[in-house]
Amino acid sequence: MTDTPPEAPAQTAVGFIGLGIMGASMAGHIQAAGYALHVHNRSPEKARALLDAGATWHDSIPGLARACDMIVTMVGYPADVEQVYFGAAGAPDTGILANLKPGAVAIDMTTSSPGLAERIAATAAGRGAAALDAPVSGGDMGARNATLAIMVGGDQATFDRVLPVFQAMGKAIALMGPAGAGQHTKMVNQTVIAGTIQGVAEALAYAQVAGLDQRQVLDVIGGGAAGGFQLNVLGKRMVEGDFAPGFYVHHFLKDMGIAAAEAERMGLDLPALALARRQYQRFADEGGREDGTQGLYKMVVKG
Amino acid sequence: MTDTPPEAPAQTAVGFIGLGIMGASMAGHIQAAGYALHVHNRSPEKARALLDAGATWHDSIPGLARACDMIVTMVGYPADVEQVYFGAAGAPDTGILANLKPGAVAIDMTTSSPGLAERIAATAAGRGAAALDAPVSGGDMGARNATLAIMVGGDQATFDRVLPVFQAMGKAIALMGPAGAGQHTKMVNQTVIAGTIQGVAEALAYAQVAGLDQRQVLDVIGGGAAGGFQLNVLGKRMVEGDFAPGFYVHHFLKDMGIAAAEAERMGLDLPALALARRQYQRFADEGGREDGTQGLYKMVVKG
Repeated sequence: MTDTPPEAPAQTAVGFIGLGIMGASMAGHIQAAGYALHVHNRSPEKARALLDAGATWHDSIPGLARACDMIVTMVGYPADVEQVYFGAAGAPDTGILANLKPGAVAIDMTTSSPGLAERIAATAAGRGAAALDAPVSGGDMGARNATLAIMVGGDQATFDRVLPVFQAMGKAIALMGPAGAGQHTKMVNQTVIAGTIQGVAEALAYAQVAGLDQRQVLDVIGGGAAGGFQLNVLGKRMVEGDFAPGFYVHHFLKDMGIAAAEAERMGLDLPALALARRQYQRFADEGGREDGTQGLYKMVVKG
Repeated sequence: MTDTPPEAPAQTAVGFIGLGIMGASMAGHIQAAGYALHVHNRSPEKARALLDAGATWHDSIPGLARACDMIVTMVGYPADVEQVYFGAAGAPDTGILANLKPGAVAIDMTTSSPGLAERIAATAAGRGAAALDAPVSGGDMGARNATLAIMVGGDQATFDRVLPVFQAMGKAIALMGPAGAGQHTKMVNQTVIAGTIQGVAEALAYAQVAGLDQRQVLDVIGGGAAGGFQLNVLGKRMVEGDFAPGFYVHHFLKDMGIAAAEAERMGLDLPALALARRQYQRFADEGGREDGTQGLYKMVVKG
């Protein structure tokens, strides 16, 4: 849809802000694809491997923004996205948007609010630049293996331009609609999971209390109408007592909070999502914040 | 575990009671495997094809029971199972158990209560016979294609004896433990589904209200952490507006009622299961009884 071909990687400066577990892997893939990588992170030590491989460090977000043609952000919460894009309170010049080059593209891959994505896109457009919301699913493993699903909101021309960068990080990559549509799609994904993980945790607690061999139960029901990733992968971890985080409880709570707020705004009553939020909040309050989402099983079993 | 080899099919009289959509297919597979099939059903016309293929009709349950080495039942509700096995109120002689031949096996494949399965097994043993509970999953399609999962409760020797009959009807066949364990396993399966189908219905309602292309959403999220039978098969039917029953709402309500009662008896709090029961009861009350379980979507969308 755009007349200009995708930029040649070596001539394209791609900034990356937010080098957490997932971000560091994703930035590494962009670098490996040949792009000139620029990085900024709250904890500079997490940039070390990328800098050793030739990335350029920036002490500040404005410095990075002014140097880059594309800027990818992968931070924690919507409040972090707000600050990274719009600057610290009372200091808009410290954010990405005030320093975006004309024609540049900012791409937020954090799971964040659709409304915030719309505001970012509108502000970027007002500066003659563009923005995409592009949350992912697939977790740290998907980030490491460049097999993420990437759900994108924005316009077709910008999507086409950024597609080669997405292809360095993921497999299922889809433009879902205008600004915010990527975030909405991620909320759909998380809402399915909210119901499913509760069903899996409750069912395996039932199996345990009924005296069944839980592994044998997984074998016999995993291929049928109950089967899926949550049962077959996370259910297995529940029965093995492996509660290490693939996906953190506190991140899931953030996502469900966004989905619930959006549903309410749209006038939609989603009781299973609401129940999952209450259950996970209780689990977090009881010490489960840093567990993987499969940890809910422990709370259901002990009642 | 048993010293006697499995009976030769042609010398083994297998009775089948309950020729509904699933039962008729299952009985047909037993007949096709070479067993001498005996049938009884509340509506005799449903036996026509089996009788044409050589099955023996019995006007009464006692008549069938006295003629058979193995008796399979596939009826509707636990109350039906109770009556078929223990006879009409005040008339125990009209049930299977009072008429079971010594050495015979009664196999209840209805999804029913674990406690009732234990009572049937104890009563059968008291008569020098045996019983298995063997509910299935896989629906009418699994029954038709002989690909059912069969979850069995009972003793190993009886299981081994009946296994060739199960193999005529299903694929994943497992002895899960003593009497009642087959029913408990089915309850685990239904509890997973209860949470999952709610998540799927709420998520696709969100997608619709947010203005996303639901088919594209299914494509992008169906292969990831939200993916599974409920999303990929029933979610697809939701977005296509296909609410025809693969699995009836009123049967799902029966199953969830049993699971909830068992959970309560075991002192287990299962809030997502409880929510699904309330939601499906409301949907049934509003006219959804004869819909497939994916019909819940309609109720979530309209709020």
